Amino acid sequence: MPHYERILITGAAGRLGSELRKGLVPLAKTIRLAGREPFHDLAPHEEEAVFDLADMEATIAATKDCDAIVHFGGAPLECEWQTILDSSIRGSYHIYEGARKHGVKRVIYASSVHAIGYHEIEAHIGVDAPVRPDSLYGVSKNFVESLSRLYWDKFGIETACLRIFSSFPEPADRRMLWSYLSFADCVRLVEASLTAPRVGHTISFGISDNKLKMVDNSGADHLGFIPQDSAEPFRAAVEAKTPVPDPKKPSVKYLGGWFCELGHPDDKPAG
Amino acid sequence: MPHYERILITGAAGRLGSELRKGLVPLAKTIRLAGREPFHDLAPHEEEAVFDLADMEATIAATKDCDAIVHFGGAPLECEWQTILDSSIRGSYHIYEGARKHGVKRVIYASSVHAIGYHEIEAHIGVDAPVRPDSLYGVSKNFVESLSRLYWDKFGIETACLRIFSSFPEPADRRMLWSYLSFADCVRLVEASLTAPRVGHTISFGISDNKLKMVDNSGADHLGFIPQDSAEPFRAAVEAKTPVPDPKKPSVKYLGGWFCELGHPDDKPAG
Amino acid sequence: MPHYERILITGAAGRLGSELRKGLVPLAKTIRLAGREPFHDLAPHEEEAVFDLADMEATIAATKDCDAIVHFGGAPLECEWQTILDSSIRGSYHIYEGARKHGVKRVIYASSVHAIGYHEIEAHIGVDAPVRPDSLYGVSKNFVESLSRLYWDKFGIETACLRIFSSFPEPADRRMLWSYLSFADCVRLVEASLTAPRVGHTISFGISDNKLKMVDNSGADHLGFIPQDSAEPFRAAVEAKTPVPDPKKPSVKYLGGWFCELGHPDDKPAG
Amino acid sequence: MPHYERILITGAAGRLGSELRKGLVPLAKTIRLAGREPFHDLAPHEEEAVFDLADMEATIAATKDCDAIVHFGGAPLECEWQTILDSSIRGSYHIYEGARKHGVKRVIYASSVHAIGYHEIEAHIGVDAPVRPDSLYGVSKNFVESLSRLYWDKFGIETACLRIFSSFPEPADRRMLWSYLSFADCVRLVEASLTAPRVGHTISFGISDNKLKMVDNSGADHLGFIPQDSAEPFRAAVEAKTPVPDPKKPSVKYLGGWFCELGHPDDKPAG
Amino acid sequence: MPHYERILITGAAGRLGSELRKGLVPLAKTIRLAGREPFHDLAPHEEEAVFDLADMEATIAATKDCDAIVHFGGAPLECEWQTILDSSIRGSYHIYEGARKHGVKRVIYASSVHAIGYHEIEAHIGVDAPVRPDSLYGVSKNFVESLSRLYWDKFGIETACLRIFSSFPEPADRRMLWSYLSFADCVRLVEASLTAPRVGHTISFGISDNKLKMVDNSGADHLGFIPQDSAEPFRAAVEAKTPVPDPKKPSVKYLGGWFCELGHPDDKPAG
Amino acid sequence: MPHYERILITGAAGRLGSELRKGLVPLAKTIRLAGREPFHDLAPHEEEAVFDLADMEATIAATKDCDAIVHFGGAPLECEWQTILDSSIRGSYHIYEGARKHGVKRVIYASSVHAIGYHEIEAHIGVDAPVRPDSLYGVSKNFVESLSRLYWDKFGIETACLRIFSSFPEPADRRMLWSYLSFADCVRLVEASLTAPRVGHTISFGISDNKLKMVDNSGADHLGFIPQDSAEPFRAAVEAKTPVPDPKKPSVKYLGGWFCELGHPDDKPAG
Repeated sequence: MPHYERILITGAAGRLGSELRKGLVPLAKTIRLAGREPFHDLAPHEEEAVFDLADMEATIAATKDCDAIVHFGGAPLECEWQTILDSSIRGSYHIYEGARKHGVKRVIYASSVHAIGYHEIEAHIGVDAPVRPDSLYGVSKNFVESLSRLYWDKFGIETACLRIFSSFPEPADRRMLWSYLSFADCVRLVEASLTAPRVGHTISFGISDNKLKMVDNSGADHLGFIPQDSAEPFRAAVEAKTPVPDPKKPSVKYLGGWFCELGHPDDKPAG
Repeated sequence: MPHYERILITGAAGRLGSELRKGLVPLAKTIRLAGREPFHDLAPHEEEAVFDLADMEATIAATKDCDAIVHFGGAPLECEWQTILDSSIRGSYHIYEGARKHGVKRVIYASSVHAIGYHEIEAHIGVDAPVRPDSLYGVSKNFVESLSRLYWDKFGIETACLRIFSSFPEPADRRMLWSYLSFADCVRLVEASLTAPRVGHTISFGISDNKLKMVDNSGADHLGFIPQDSAEPFRAAVEAKTPVPDPKKPSVKYLGGWFCELGHPDDKPAG
Repeated sequence: MPHYERILITGAAGRLGSELRKGLVPLAKTIRLAGREPFHDLAPHEEEAVFDLADMEATIAATKDCDAIVHFGGAPLECEWQTILDSSIRGSYHIYEGARKHGVKRVIYASSVHAIGYHEIEAHIGVDAPVRPDSLYGVSKNFVESLSRLYWDKFGIETACLRIFSSFPEPADRRMLWSYLSFADCVRLVEASLTAPRVGHTISFGISDNKLKMVDNSGADHLGFIPQDSAEPFRAAVEAKTPVPDPKKPSVKYLGGWFCELGHPDDKPAG
Repeated sequence: MPHYERILITGAAGRLGSELRKGLVPLAKTIRLAGREPFHDLAPHEEEAVFDLADMEATIAATKDCDAIVHFGGAPLECEWQTILDSSIRGSYHIYEGARKHGVKRVIYASSVHAIGYHEIEAHIGVDAPVRPDSLYGVSKNFVESLSRLYWDKFGIETACLRIFSSFPEPADRRMLWSYLSFADCVRLVEASLTAPRVGHTISFGISDNKLKMVDNSGADHLGFIPQDSAEPFRAAVEAKTPVPDPKKPSVKYLGGWFCELGHPDDKPAG
Repeated sequence: MPHYERILITGAAGRLGSELRKGLVPLAKTIRLAGREPFHDLAPHEEEAVFDLADMEATIAATKDCDAIVHFGGAPLECEWQTILDSSIRGSYHIYEGARKHGVKRVIYASSVHAIGYHEIEAHIGVDAPVRPDSLYGVSKNFVESLSRLYWDKFGIETACLRIFSSFPEPADRRMLWSYLSFADCVRLVEASLTAPRVGHTISFGISDNKLKMVDNSGADHLGFIPQDSAEPFRAAVEAKTPVPDPKKPSVKYLGGWFCELGHPDDKPAG
Repeated sequence: MPHYERILITGAAGRLGSELRKGLVPLAKTIRLAGREPFHDLAPHEEEAVFDLADMEATIAATKDCDAIVHFGGAPLECEWQTILDSSIRGSYHIYEGARKHGVKRVIYASSVHAIGYHEIEAHIGVDAPVRPDSLYGVSKNFVESLSRLYWDKFGIETACLRIFSSFPEPADRRMLWSYLSFADCVRLVEASLTAPRVGHTISFGISDNKLKMVDNSGADHLGFIPQDSAEPFRAAVEAKTPVPDPKKPSVKYLGGWFCELGHPDDKPAG
């Protein structure tokens, strides 16, 4: 018996959404895939919802009949303000209004290391450290973390905010030797968040069981997430192709990495 | 010699803006008053900027030639999402973009107790406690606190976020016996924030020297704010006209008071 | 208009009870004095309740029609187990059962420094430090602190546990230069606890505004207790008559003073 | 060579006492089993002591010639005050007096999660969090924790207070998915406490290596307890037979579970 | 009756030593002034000890018959290693050996803000923050803080380490608006340290009651030091003659001020 | 490809230095062995540097052309002041001057449990607890910890200070059941410190994965040190040959063990 009748996955066509689409199958009778483009390969247990998160009415409609929402949609990295505003800030508000109006009881939200990217590595912060975003992208993550806290305290909707570090097929640089989150561990983390008996409002770091540990995730131990993977098998290859960095560079000193060395996105021509 | 050439005050026609318009006179050669309506009583040291915060171009233009911004504009209490979004979220982004483009080095921002309104009174939180907004209004305060943190860490613009508790002519209910911030202390707090040698990114509670103390403001002691007023002289009158409340009610249990008992603003017909 | 209809004071014939009998007059229409012997000097606003705290039925009866209880009865210092058990442990249980059965909403309890007497002076403990009693007397204080916590969390009865340090007419030894609580400040502390808008379950240290500060009472700032007295005026006299003590003696090293050098009370013939 | 000459186990006929009777065999030459009824199956290495903990003289006598006491006797769950008082409060005092008079150097005490049952699950408390009992049973646990602290600080008797969570043959409900302590892990915990080189006064949580972790036991790492079991193998069966609970119910919100929803035991007819 | 028979003041001819020579008169029958040159103006209650701190035998001899040592000698600011080594490291070791051999029970040591100069201002550190020296001078302060901790724990000699911030006739720059310690407050601090009933090993910040507060001295409240002076009266003059500094400069960002911008002293020709 | 061109190991002839000489082979093309006597068994990848650490010029010269220094030289345990001063204090200053003058970017320093030996075992201190040396040896460790902090903050030279507990072939007494660091784990710790992507200034405890855990090393998790050994296999043998100690003895109560019961080394005839 799956835990849920119907889970909505936003950003279902994205890098992590695609993984979750496969990984969460055992947890729901039906998985509703949300994206801006139609999906052409729906399985029998799947259905689709095609809309733009900036569209309040459509977004709210897409949450109907769902027990849970896995909200991985919105801008996937730093970009200009208008996009952040529409997809990540307004879009997430629409998701929470959908949850409130349609009685969805639990949301799993893809927050990011960039919500606390300007903390120093040696600070070994826990999940309740004050926010220090490293980008507009990070600011939008803080916004949803705050919004979801309100929806728990006032409206009783549970949220697990997963601050995903570096979830890629494999570690691509030296920073990922500590920040790596394997796809399998990412799925495990979302699964744990969906099945934990009580989530309330939880902030958790999303990071594999890497040997080098920069943060303290014990404040989220009630989720029962136990990562199984590590960046170590990739270490030799990564070190061979990248030089030892200057330990005083912002991208080495702070959790956020190269986001801390980006300028303002509105100064660049929109992509 | 005043500290500043020109200070921009947003929300200058509001309850606290009006006090600041008078109180900050010694600190700048010129004070630029921002509001949605023209001011009809400009003094020689004053100039006006009439615009809507939702207008990015106009807002950025209004920050030109200013050394400091006292940002008290935006929605003054809980209201429907569209207003929060336009005036408090988008409007504040416009202010910070103005500061960045025009080289303003310090912003004083009117945050609020409602940014942390769902903390319990007995928790005696400090200024670095995790956010727990009690309203969309509070969520928008968290947004600006996060945004301004970014603008300090990445762009070097200092901000003091002043979490104002209850700034009214006098305490109106029993909660204000501990949450009261007199107008004079409010001006003192803004003045301290404008003249402190180094603000970096500071979050400070705004509260008078009331006998009952629910929060710990020591994390902002570097501002040099020393409140001079107290709610005690008003206590007898307040107690005479209001009953002893139930200690387990949300409005008594949490810092945010009656905001914690409000429903969702979008459920009400827009004002 | 006094805050209360009727306050019950237990231990009303004791050293501090006598002070409270006078000091709390403005707070209640009627003060009910509890003791083991009749009072022969009742004023018009006073009534008496003569009983032994070990008598459950009588104790519960004495709490009838009271809004508040100021519980200063029970063994006043270290003594043999049977007395501690009957007057402080069983007696206090009877008081709380009275409060529960008769709807009393707030209790002010005379706890003691001896509840945490084995903490080192330099530890500067706050009110939430783990218990470290220095005597059976201290253990009984911990018992009531625990019991009253239950009665708040489960039954909604508020309690302020006042850990009184050294409340005497004047400092009698060098330790009291930091542990002194003047009678007037003791009354102020009880008064603040009775009139604070929300007490919940609060533990507060009871100590005057002495120059030497060994503990951190900020966790009880919501009571609004502001001591007005100090041991300093007595310092010269105290130092003249007492030698400088060895800084490594238990009675100097620990908060509890000479209680830390007492043996077990049951080893002595009962008083 | 066993660590001890003779260990006294109180409550030796109880659910956990029976397990310890078997599990502690390697640690002592002789195990003295204490209970209110005779044991009819004594092994050669066993001896019995039949008495009521409320009987001071008999209890003290039973501690004679013991090196260690494993004190698991007294009321096993919430019950009326008189029973709590006699068996848990008075009885434990008798045990400690026995230890003091007969030179027993170490006591292992069965405290309980109910000593801190009113802490919220998400608080992730450590072993030194302030007490928040959820029952008279929990208050009696706090009493012994306090009493044993005194007997260490003043009389040099070591105690490990083991706050046992849910020690049953297998997890019986969803809460036990995180609170489960297998019988084998319970024995391991007592064994570790008996053999650790230095216990002083230690408070430890007693909980298996469950995937969901609600508390932080690192403050007791010097005991060397490493749980080997987990509730995970029972998860599917438990989830199949119990519905998902409301996350805002006291029995879900607080560590103490359903004890937090019990009324006062004296309101029920005595069992 | 003065507290002491004979106090030794090292560095008695220095800026602060001269103040203490006058200020400590009421505390001792005899004050022994230590310096490298003879004093030509000894008062009847004074005696001199002329020696170099690098001379172990002479230094030990100078501590004979003293009850207390006020150790303000050694290098007064950053200088080359050999001087730091001889006067501050070796010299201080000689002082503590003198105290140990001659039974001196209390030492007051002039440590410095430069022992923790690389902490950020906004960190609001307390007295137990990890060391972060900003100079070899600061390293030598850490050395004596460590050494004196050993002499307390192992040999029972009390020390108050006073981390003096900026003790000058008046604030000379904007940093001193928060770091100023008036001469009178410096004397008060030493006096409090000499008369506190128990010092054990205490680290205290030495700073006047300035409006801007960067550090938390509550960990030394048992000394009873209550500063009476403030930098505020000097603020207007200081601000008039110095520009507003860049908030990201090391000398503004860190507690140590301009010491944080010094190079290595051995790179300069010895003075 | 090894991480380093040339690593200098000081104390290379010592107990741990000999292990490192073997264990660090894969990390550098060349290993330079430093000692006071010539090495007679140099391998092709090794070279020697024979000098006394008290000789500044020779020490600085020995650091030339090195990328990293593993500084395990100096007095190996408590001894008289002059030796501590020359080999550990002056010698370490020379090493850091060498690193600064020759551009060495990372130093691994053999600090010791004796740097914090007077902390109580039950305090479970972390790596940022205030220093509490138990010997002159421990004071010298604090000196280098402070000095290296300065060289990181001011000169950008990274240091890992490894507080080695008890690194011997096997546990020799009951204390080592928790303090044991196997030789292999010691090598692993140094290796991790040499290869971690960013060390900055790190203090780490050096201790194997013993079952009994007295300290919290999580503040150094960014080094990626994961001990593989344990004292458990040696437990039975150790317990068989050593009696159970008195839990109130300093050597049992404090982290430093028997160092806490040593007198002053200068009171003994120099060895």
